Amino acid sequence: MRIGSNLVLTAAEHFANEIFMKEKRNLIESSRLNRAVFFPSASFFQSKPLIEQSLLYQLIHTMPKGASLHIHDQSMVSLDWIIKNVTYRDNVYMCLWQQSYLIFQVFKTIPLNPDCDWKLVVRERKLCKDVAAFDLNLRNNLSLVVNDPFVNFPDNQAAWVKFSQYFRQVGQLLYFIPIFKEMLWQTMMEFREANILYMEVRVTYAGLYDLDGNTYKREYCTQLVKEVSEAFSQHYPDFIGMKIIFSGIRFQNVSDILDEVKDVMTLHKKYPDIVAGYDLSGNEAYFRPLHYYSDALMFPSQQDPSYRLPYFLHAGETNWQGTETGYNIVDALLLNATRVGHAYALSKHPHLMKLYKERDIPIEVQPLSNQVLRLITDFRNHPMVSLIADNFSIVISCDDRTTMDSAPLSHDFYIVFTAMSSDKADITLLKQLALNSIRFSTLNDSEKERAQRLWQTKWDKFINEVIQRR
Amino acid sequence: MRIGSNLVLTAAEHFANEIFMKEKRNLIESSRLNRAVFFPSASFFQSKPLIEQSLLYQLIHTMPKGASLHIHDQSMVSLDWIIKNVTYRDNVYMCLWQQSYLIFQVFKTIPLNPDCDWKLVVRERKLCKDVAAFDLNLRNNLSLVVNDPFVNFPDNQAAWVKFSQYFRQVGQLLYFIPIFKEMLWQTMMEFREANILYMEVRVTYAGLYDLDGNTYKREYCTQLVKEVSEAFSQHYPDFIGMKIIFSGIRFQNVSDILDEVKDVMTLHKKYPDIVAGYDLSGNEAYFRPLHYYSDALMFPSQQDPSYRLPYFLHAGETNWQGTETGYNIVDALLLNATRVGHAYALSKHPHLMKLYKERDIPIEVQPLSNQVLRLITDFRNHPMVSLIADNFSIVISCDDRTTMDSAPLSHDFYIVFTAMSSDKADITLLKQLALNSIRFSTLNDSEKERAQRLWQTKWDKFINEVIQRR
Repeated sequence: MRIGSNLVLTAAEHFANEIFMKEKRNLIESSRLNRAVFFPSASFFQSKPLIEQSLLYQLIHTMPKGASLHIHDQSMVSLDWIIKNVTYRDNVYMCLWQQSYLIFQVFKTIPLNPDCDWKLVVRERKLCKDVAAFDLNLRNNLSLVVNDPFVNFPDNQAAWVKFSQYFRQVGQLLYFIPIFKEMLWQTMMEFREANILYMEVRVTYAGLYDLDGNTYKREYCTQLVKEVSEAFSQHYPDFIGMKIIFSGIRFQNVSDILDEVKDVMTLHKKYPDIVAGYDLSGNEAYFRPLHYYSDALMFPSQQDPSYRLPYFLHAGETNWQGTETGYNIVDALLLNATRVGHAYALSKHPHLMKLYKERDIPIEVQPLSNQVLRLITDFRNHPMVSLIADNFSIVISCDDRTTMDSAPLSHDFYIVFTAMSSDKADITLLKQLALNSIRFSTLNDSEKERAQRLWQTKWDKFINEVIQRR
Repeated sequence: MRIGSNLVLTAAEHFANEIFMKEKRNLIESSRLNRAVFFPSASFFQSKPLIEQSLLYQLIHTMPKGASLHIHDQSMVSLDWIIKNVTYRDNVYMCLWQQSYLIFQVFKTIPLNPDCDWKLVVRERKLCKDVAAFDLNLRNNLSLVVNDPFVNFPDNQAAWVKFSQYFRQVGQLLYFIPIFKEMLWQTMMEFREANILYMEVRVTYAGLYDLDGNTYKREYCTQLVKEVSEAFSQHYPDFIGMKIIFSGIRFQNVSDILDEVKDVMTLHKKYPDIVAGYDLSGNEAYFRPLHYYSDALMFPSQQDPSYRLPYFLHAGETNWQGTETGYNIVDALLLNATRVGHAYALSKHPHLMKLYKERDIPIEVQPLSNQVLRLITDFRNHPMVSLIADNFSIVISCDDRTTMDSAPLSHDFYIVFTAMSSDKADITLLKQLALNSIRFSTLNDSEKERAQRLWQTKWDKFINEVIQRR
């Protein structure tokens, strides 16, 4: 009944599968029978080196994983690239905000009457005797990686405080146009290296700007993403590119969200190959529920003729069962969401589960993000375990990987394979998850066909490489 | 769809319900909207004082909760009673086993060539200047209560090591006949004080003994439980008494289990009013799976005429999905279990879930036990949340309360009401759980009718008392 159980393996896939399953069985049974901690279920910040040493991870990392459909623009590139590349550039300033954390921004010159004590990063680095220590300090200041997240972040809301801070820290830095452009390229490089061929990116648009301080609207951003994406896929014809899902934030007021919806609707009409739709993100348990914005979100459908702006709504990314927050999964359904982000609360609502299944609503699942934000501790208890076992339309993604040092998809796929599926769930699960990511993307039919062909070629090659290891 | 949603409240119950729901809403919303830790979901060892201060807990503690159907003989009385009463008795000896933990036993005189350096507890206590410190030391040595269980016990198996040790520590002490008898009485006192009217007790029979070192068989134990139970319910006519579920342990060999099954079958025939059936307990993920014992367990049904010995099987008390351990929930079904203990793994198997529901197999759920044994961290992720929301036949019990200082049922009911059900789940959930515990007990029809009547009288009185608070 689980995801992938309908697939029939070729002889070659069958041989490759034996290698995967030997590793999986050893991993599970050596923990069970020796009463040893099952590290894939432990804190990712502690298990990461153990995971990466394993053959299973190396196989999964090399495996063509299809598309990444739930990532956020400011937290999709590697943190190392931000530290080692971005902060080494001219005109990048930093400042200790309220004696608490560093914020970054690009200026031609420091503003008159600054609200913060801005310092040029390259100069500060030069003044510092130990460059490695300087860079490590920047890194630690930005990252959510801590020694023991279960102690450092007592619960989901405590983790959100630090998590929100990250966006305040890098938001201005990454929205400087030359950096933003190169970040798009670098991100595609990193995702392609992890054997991903397409991305849909949530863009919580806060205004791109240039060195003279001019800011630009969403359309400029759209054109820029289109340009970089096309250049990239021209250079790497095995990569399809990226599309944008513009996102509002759940603390904005209704009229601002309405303005965004109108703007995104126009862009969706004008750039259907690059603008996929709209979402609302941000701390769901703390800020406004979806129904608060229902008038704004229903605006497109109420036009004459009715316009269908696809919604990709974060909903139910919470441990609450019910409350305004929990019922976002009802409203996501009523608002006809094209896909739903997380739906972590869904398994607690049997009738809603049935409706999601009947209507085949794809769910974007990001296990590592859920652990780092302290919704789940042991992945074996993740609510999506039941839905994976029942063949819900699930895609796996990596959410805000920058903040937690995870690879594009690979770690999340590893967790699903080892800790969130049965000991009998084999390579068909991984294959179907890759296929789902193409199927539930917003690529049009011909693009999907191309993506599918590209993926299949890579998959066959991958299977052959795995078999060579025998 | 949830448990209790079919019940229609009387006007009085409706008023009482408002008090419950006001408290529940405040508890949830004050956490959600203030981003404060939701303490009912935290470690019980840290949340316990906060829980007990609450009006909601006091209401639930006073509420008639029906029967407790999943408890174990050596861990059902309060630890304080063991320390302050049992260890103060004559002839009770203690010994530091392998420089590691204390074990207790009753001797007329210390055995020749003892395997351990036995010391008379009363004498040691006298020699100690600080009696309170002495008793606290005994307590800490026996209890699983630690400051931070998530640190002290890194996982389920680490917790099991300490947990198993407890039974090694007190097993001989509590099986000394005079102590065992008084323990039965004291336990019924404590459960009755927590507004419970009936108990079914797992007895992992290790041989009752007297001061001369004579040991006695299961039949003696059965008669003794019958005698104490009848005396108690004569003295307290609002208490129905207790029945026994004899339990083997999963590390025994098949022929020993077969002998036990035969013995219990005979006792079940002879004492149908006191022997309810048979179970297998012990560390499920580490020891033998059910199917290992299938020949022994099928013995009664294979007699001519076939004999139905009711089974109350621990099954799926594990985080594993699949493995020999996980598939115990299949075998419990195939072995026609009258009730299943824990079935923690069930929600990961959609088809099995359906079968359990169709066949109306009652599941015994013990949330606190699952947390202390490190299966679950945040109760809001407990796999039974989905099954409670879908009206599975669930009864709540308190498993090994001695080891974790929990009240008979009250804390577990509190957790289910606050953290394992929707914000809309009201007093009908609690009422139905109490009704379930009578319905799914092994009381015969006339006993059930009496239990039901007794419960209803207490319930009506309780509702009236709650209303007086308004």
